Amino acid sequence: MYVIDYEERDEIRVDMPGAEKTTMRWLVGRRSGARTYAMRYFEIEAGGKIPLHQHAEEHEIFILDGEAKLLGGDEGMTAKKDDVVFIEPNEPHGYDNTEGESPFRFICVIPLLEE
Amino acid sequence: MYVIDYEERDEIRVDMPGAEKTTMRWLVGRRSGARTYAMRYFEIEAGGKIPLHQHAEEHEIFILDGEAKLLGGDEGMTAKKDDVVFIEPNEPHGYDNTEGESPFRFICVIPLLEE
Repeated sequence: MYVIDYEERDEIRVDMPGAEKTTMRWLVGRRSGARTYAMRYFEIEAGGKIPLHQHAEEHEIFILDGEAKLLGGDEGMTAKKDDVVFIEPNEPHGYDNTEGESPFRFICVIPLLEE
Repeated sequence: MYVIDYEERDEIRVDMPGAEKTTMRWLVGRRSGARTYAMRYFEIEAGGKIPLHQHAEEHEIFILDGEAKLLGGDEGMTAKKDDVVFIEPNEPHGYDNTEGESPFRFICVIPLLEE
């Protein structure tokens, strides 16, 4: 058992092509106890985004703060504080906070697939 | 892809022996898309607790609000808003908010083990 404030985890700039003003932290990853799934923290500043992309890992997401457009779903779809978002494996998705006025912060859990 | 406010999920009283003033919600479970891990939401009111217990499922936890004593770890261990808690498989653990003055709310992700 351990307890750690999320801010003690390294803040890493998300350098995916097209990503802007976004950082992430591995809260529980392979090196910190995760076996089959990992918990990450994302923060997209006002004016930032993670563009549409896709991968084999599904997402289980909980929004901590802010509101942003969800890319890849129905037109006009948004997610806000206290929302749960589920994204299927290989489903195109992204998060657009370019028109937001506050940070969009969320927890995102992914499976640790075979490397 | 779907988006849902956590409050739209059914609130279920936790009836584990010794649990007090505690409810949970399945945010993403088997019926709502989870494949190998599930995201749940817990709320322990001020004065409530989940007593020491153990099981095969590890926990990856993010504290949303409040502060509570963690049972089963080092003496005096607590968890508060913005903390990450990791609990190993079969490690005894519990959460004591009996002396707290506000709800202790957290996200808890577990593996979906073979039934």
